[in-house]
Amino acid sequence: MARQNKPIRSDIAWSTRDRIEVRGKDLPNDILGHMNLGDLAYLQLTGQAPTEQQSKVFNAIVITLVEHGITPSALAARITYAGAPESLQAAVAAGLCGLGTVFVGSMEGASKMLYEALPDAQADVDLDALADQVVAGFRGRKQIIPGLGHPLHKPVDPRTPRLFQIAEENGLSGRYVDLMQRIAAKAEAASGKQLPINATGAIGAICCEFGFPWKIVRGFGVMARAIGLVGHILEESENPMGVEIWQRVEDEATAHIRPE
Amino acid sequence: MARQNKPIRSDIAWSTRDRIEVRGKDLPNDILGHMNLGDLAYLQLTGQAPTEQQSKVFNAIVITLVEHGITPSALAARITYAGAPESLQAAVAAGLCGLGTVFVGSMEGASKMLYEALPDAQADVDLDALADQVVAGFRGRKQIIPGLGHPLHKPVDPRTPRLFQIAEENGLSGRYVDLMQRIAAKAEAASGKQLPINATGAIGAICCEFGFPWKIVRGFGVMARAIGLVGHILEESENPMGVEIWQRVEDEATAHIRPE
Amino acid sequence: MARQNKPIRSDIAWSTRDRIEVRGKDLPNDILGHMNLGDLAYLQLTGQAPTEQQSKVFNAIVITLVEHGITPSALAARITYAGAPESLQAAVAAGLCGLGTVFVGSMEGASKMLYEALPDAQADVDLDALADQVVAGFRGRKQIIPGLGHPLHKPVDPRTPRLFQIAEENGLSGRYVDLMQRIAAKAEAASGKQLPINATGAIGAICCEFGFPWKIVRGFGVMARAIGLVGHILEESENPMGVEIWQRVEDEATAHIRPE
Amino acid sequence: MARQNKPIRSDIAWSTRDRIEVRGKDLPNDILGHMNLGDLAYLQLTGQAPTEQQSKVFNAIVITLVEHGITPSALAARITYAGAPESLQAAVAAGLCGLGTVFVGSMEGASKMLYEALPDAQADVDLDALADQVVAGFRGRKQIIPGLGHPLHKPVDPRTPRLFQIAEENGLSGRYVDLMQRIAAKAEAASGKQLPINATGAIGAICCEFGFPWKIVRGFGVMARAIGLVGHILEESENPMGVEIWQRVEDEATAHIRPE
Repeated sequence: MARQNKPIRSDIAWSTRDRIEVRGKDLPNDILGHMNLGDLAYLQLTGQAPTEQQSKVFNAIVITLVEHGITPSALAARITYAGAPESLQAAVAAGLCGLGTVFVGSMEGASKMLYEALPDAQADVDLDALADQVVAGFRGRKQIIPGLGHPLHKPVDPRTPRLFQIAEENGLSGRYVDLMQRIAAKAEAASGKQLPINATGAIGAICCEFGFPWKIVRGFGVMARAIGLVGHILEESENPMGVEIWQRVEDEATAHIRPE
Repeated sequence: MARQNKPIRSDIAWSTRDRIEVRGKDLPNDILGHMNLGDLAYLQLTGQAPTEQQSKVFNAIVITLVEHGITPSALAARITYAGAPESLQAAVAAGLCGLGTVFVGSMEGASKMLYEALPDAQADVDLDALADQVVAGFRGRKQIIPGLGHPLHKPVDPRTPRLFQIAEENGLSGRYVDLMQRIAAKAEAASGKQLPINATGAIGAICCEFGFPWKIVRGFGVMARAIGLVGHILEESENPMGVEIWQRVEDEATAHIRPE
Repeated sequence: MARQNKPIRSDIAWSTRDRIEVRGKDLPNDILGHMNLGDLAYLQLTGQAPTEQQSKVFNAIVITLVEHGITPSALAARITYAGAPESLQAAVAAGLCGLGTVFVGSMEGASKMLYEALPDAQADVDLDALADQVVAGFRGRKQIIPGLGHPLHKPVDPRTPRLFQIAEENGLSGRYVDLMQRIAAKAEAASGKQLPINATGAIGAICCEFGFPWKIVRGFGVMARAIGLVGHILEESENPMGVEIWQRVEDEATAHIRPE
Repeated sequence: MARQNKPIRSDIAWSTRDRIEVRGKDLPNDILGHMNLGDLAYLQLTGQAPTEQQSKVFNAIVITLVEHGITPSALAARITYAGAPESLQAAVAAGLCGLGTVFVGSMEGASKMLYEALPDAQADVDLDALADQVVAGFRGRKQIIPGLGHPLHKPVDPRTPRLFQIAEENGLSGRYVDLMQRIAAKAEAASGKQLPINATGAIGAICCEFGFPWKIVRGFGVMARAIGLVGHILEESENPMGVEIWQRVEDEATAHIRPE
């Protein structure tokens, strides 16, 4: 008994001999020259061109995630490029592979937490009581609350108030941002520690205001970082550090067992 | 005799407790809310914010590379996501790994060809004679001229005239674009075949107008495609094709040796 | 206040001008010509050369995971190779990226389940009662029991009895294999469905007999599959399917929106 | 006019409800318990089980490539694992991405050089004169001869004589190994520098004795390194260095622009 084929279908883009459409728009005539890269990313993901306000906030979110200095992801890309400079794409890929639960996961974690606490943004619930519940739940399970705290940026992550300001000015600061802020305040009070909302927490909350599914939120970090990594690889090609790091680490790591 | 450490240095970004700078600009205050993603990419790569004209052209270039339907790269990302949906970043990485010489390489190939033919854009040379030389060289070595011809888009790749128009309108259509167009005309005449400048050829030429090193040109395709792939993975999570493709291919590929 | 460096150290291998040691053995003289690849993998992972019996079982485990036809991982590698044939390593990398929770995860899931149920293999507990508890726990949480069931191989996965036989003949079939078999029997009885122990379940149980940490069990699948993928890429280079798959899928996926 | 489908076909493996075959052999009954991992890799790649002699040499070749301490590839894998410990497969993938022209390419380069110089191993040519030609050619093009020289292992790479000895003892040291040795001697004489055949040069030559296509030779390094990387990731999970490397590099790299 043979299996039945299921249909295969994509609604993102198509092309014919003389036309290319992306999300229902004519790429050469309606997109090129009319949109910026952040707006096109929004179109690609949602099927809709952003309003001017959505554009402002979405560009700010993604830009925040492009670059943050010498991160593990930048190091992996640079070291990979040192071995395979003919495969720039593989160096970027290597750099992206580590964008998992440790560094970027808190962004999707914050979105997931907020959606689970408040599935319907319009629901008639008391946000203060809800924040108490959320904090108590995480503390009871001895879990870290995603999106709070930063090893370096204390007592405030300088990106957070600016992101919230941009969201506010553009009508995208609603109950999810409010809930996130209450959760942070409750968590600080309960723990007695400085737990500022970090950039990934702010972005996670604003993503809920947009209504993005939490599963795709990590994707914003991934696409932003790809841009950042190309910058690091360009610098690596001009002023390399990959081989030097390798040799220093190799020397040190095996000194205890290596004979003179 | 121990080795001497060499310095390790990066000029892209730094952060302290309360500040984050990218390319000399204050990220929260000078970038967020003021720049779009394409402009930030330009800043990340060049160290300079683009002029309004540079912004128009650079955004158009990168946007052109984001999305072109179900490509091999989109397929690899979708199939990978089917096996590891918890690692969205690895699915994007898998999709990027194939952006090599076959599909994206012609972009850097076109830039390299143009820079080698005309190392100094201001040089007093006859572009028509130069184009003749270039075409003769490639034909003599039986090599394909990068950036010409397209399997589907004939007799014109619809992106090319639009990209050249945007470059022209913004003062970024100079001698490299001119040379590319002459090379295409000569190649068509010499071969008797339709050899339109394709999108990667147009972009390769415009990248020379910007002065980007040819080695980084592939990177524009890589960062743009990362955005496109996040869109494909979002669609895959909602309307999957990965498992269906796998099962169809497996059935067909081994039918000739598999007993009933 | 500057941070204090922490030591960086690795105990796997070192080299000097005239010597190379891996895990305390002289690579040229004690390893090459004396060990097979599976035994060297065991040495690399555990720091000990395997006994003859361990060698038999470990080689069988890893070999089981090398090749299983046209899998999603093989497809991703082949499609990636089509775009970047100069970067064979990136094609293998792309194929590995999808070895996540869906296809390979059940192996580590089975090990984790068995270790959590029976942290001390020698503990004086009744395995039959323990199996009941485990099955009741998974059913209560409506979770799938890892390592049981197979879409194709019914009522028996042909690899499982053979792997258990090899383990038995070599003294590596103890209480974890016993517990796994009881869990399978209880789960079939409770669900009324055929739930054979599949190959990943058998391997997960045998890995517990070895005492491998469950977190590294996925790694056996990853290293085995890397071997399999090189075989697929070699076949792809001689008899390609990547471009054909792409074109078929592209045609079908966008037929509903693409004008004639 | 619709395109015609081309057939999709693979001859590596198939499975039905109760059988699994790999390269024409019954996996459970003819392979498991009977073959070691290196022999299975040989079967996967060539379609033939190795003879005892081929097994000895092939296992030695691949084992040589598994582990060589803290390499750039091991570093990239470890740093990636630090960010995404839930995606072990992505950490291995990241480590493989850099196995390109710089570190592993010399192996395929040596094979290619030898095949191009001596397409037919039985041809009636004078190897000494041929070696002279090859060396003169590389020197004339100012290219490095692949497989010669090593930054650390001087005047002899300790793996090389051992690999040649194993090949010799097993009937796999023929004219390609001879030619490689003559090329090394001529190159040393012509350059006045120590240019020992390194491990990748020895392996490249022995691969020609087997008759492996040069394009797949890099694949031996890739599959071997996947094994090594799993070992490094296991050590990283127990005794990490990734985060420490990141923090040291970040501190140093931006000290010149970062305010106190």
